Amino acid sequence: MSQLATENGTFREERSAEIVNARHEGCADPRLAQIISALVFHLHAFVKEVHLTQPEWQAGIDFLTTAGQMCSGERQEFILLSDVLGLSMLVDAINHRRPDVATENTVLGPFHVDGAPQRQMGETICLDGKGESCRFEGRILDLAGAPIEGARIDVWSDNAEGFYDVQQPDVQPKWNNRGVFVTDSTGAYSFLGIKPVSYPIPDDGPVGRLLAALGRHPYRPAHMHYLITAPGYEPLVTHTFVGDDQYLGSDAVFGVKASLIAPFERMPSGPVIWHSSFDFVLNPLT
Amino acid sequence: MSQLATENGTFREERSAEIVNARHEGCADPRLAQIISALVFHLHAFVKEVHLTQPEWQAGIDFLTTAGQMCSGERQEFILLSDVLGLSMLVDAINHRRPDVATENTVLGPFHVDGAPQRQMGETICLDGKGESCRFEGRILDLAGAPIEGARIDVWSDNAEGFYDVQQPDVQPKWNNRGVFVTDSTGAYSFLGIKPVSYPIPDDGPVGRLLAALGRHPYRPAHMHYLITAPGYEPLVTHTFVGDDQYLGSDAVFGVKASLIAPFERMPSGPVIWHSSFDFVLNPLT
Repeated sequence: MSQLATENGTFREERSAEIVNARHEGCADPRLAQIISALVFHLHAFVKEVHLTQPEWQAGIDFLTTAGQMCSGERQEFILLSDVLGLSMLVDAINHRRPDVATENTVLGPFHVDGAPQRQMGETICLDGKGESCRFEGRILDLAGAPIEGARIDVWSDNAEGFYDVQQPDVQPKWNNRGVFVTDSTGAYSFLGIKPVSYPIPDDGPVGRLLAALGRHPYRPAHMHYLITAPGYEPLVTHTFVGDDQYLGSDAVFGVKASLIAPFERMPSGPVIWHSSFDFVLNPLT
Repeated sequence: MSQLATENGTFREERSAEIVNARHEGCADPRLAQIISALVFHLHAFVKEVHLTQPEWQAGIDFLTTAGQMCSGERQEFILLSDVLGLSMLVDAINHRRPDVATENTVLGPFHVDGAPQRQMGETICLDGKGESCRFEGRILDLAGAPIEGARIDVWSDNAEGFYDVQQPDVQPKWNNRGVFVTDSTGAYSFLGIKPVSYPIPDDGPVGRLLAALGRHPYRPAHMHYLITAPGYEPLVTHTFVGDDQYLGSDAVFGVKASLIAPFERMPSGPVIWHSSFDFVLNPLT
């Protein structure tokens, strides 16, 4: 065998990524080849940049193995990992670029449930009677500021103790702090809930231990979830954030965008304690 | 809260990696912060470069989850993943940079076993009587070409059917195709084994399916493993590769280095069919 032939495909540190990626030239799925080749390029660059040692590589293997063994029907440790590295938000962002005037997306999160009951405008979604009551209201608008009729507003939040109903099926009423509202020709929405509270992501696994080792806390700042759909418009998956939350600048999953921080104002009197007004602007489908 | 304060730490696509990594500035373990920050930088660059879609992100999460659930005491799917992406070889390479004259490292692989029996020079390691016999011989040398006395040569290979003894404990004799030899003042070694054969890495999991989707085969070219130690020298973990193997230019785990391809010559007569001569040059400890 000639020297040229034997060296073809053999490993050399300085061309390591190119040598690996040359194997993908015959791939029948060009998009897969593109993704894996870019991943190889960046992972090799990472290893070279930090001069990863073999014990550090082994620690990485052990981390992934422990994370995989933590995954179950109720727990997704790799999504948590993606979240705390800012990757979930980045993937969301690059796939939802919109005109400046349109409301920005943020992550859906693991606690959305299809099928929440549709309620009349103004009704409450808080069924356990806990927490500080808050009226949420505003309008669903198009890019020109005109109201959108027939917009479907699916909202959900944690309860006053920081848990979603699905995390406490034996404690909370079913559909607690969830509801669906549909706009009329004014585009206006209004419902009663509670001022949301901050809560930690699940931190009893390898991702929680990584956060601790990095000196990071596991908390998400308080937020209300919205999934807003209307015929002819791009679905909007977003939150509004409580403007005075202590974790607003350090969300464990990087979900906060400055444009999504909403005013929460204390009411001067009456049974409802808080008031939060926020208009959502939908982007038309192209 | 001021606009400046609220925007501090909130997410923006164009500065996504910097925003994540700003959280690691207070980390008590600067090496951990360095590694995670470099990983975040490169993973964000990867996502942006390929414009990863949400279904593709989900496919990545599913891949990692399936790989994690495949791991057991006998199976390490994440090491396989590292292997087929060339990362294991890269980590080995950057941690074992040596003078040109010294023999290069390659991966240890999962089949080394401590405690193989020490044999007399010239003895056979093949206990199952299968395969084409081959005499392996050469010398253990220092950088100046002088023989090293007392070098310990731990060798292992698959059998003629492509399996290591530990993969077939009920089929193969214990320590089949394994042995330890110690050099005298000549630095010479010699043992009888078989001409190794190529074999596939475990390909019945997600890594095997990825290789298939990429149009890559799962085979490793035939090789003999060596772990050579001597007082005062850096341990050498390497293989010699059979020079006419069809997979020499396409090793599934990128273990082949051009300098490790050995001659395997057919003997003109006599009971031993093949002969392979290779000198190993050890790097002194610094």
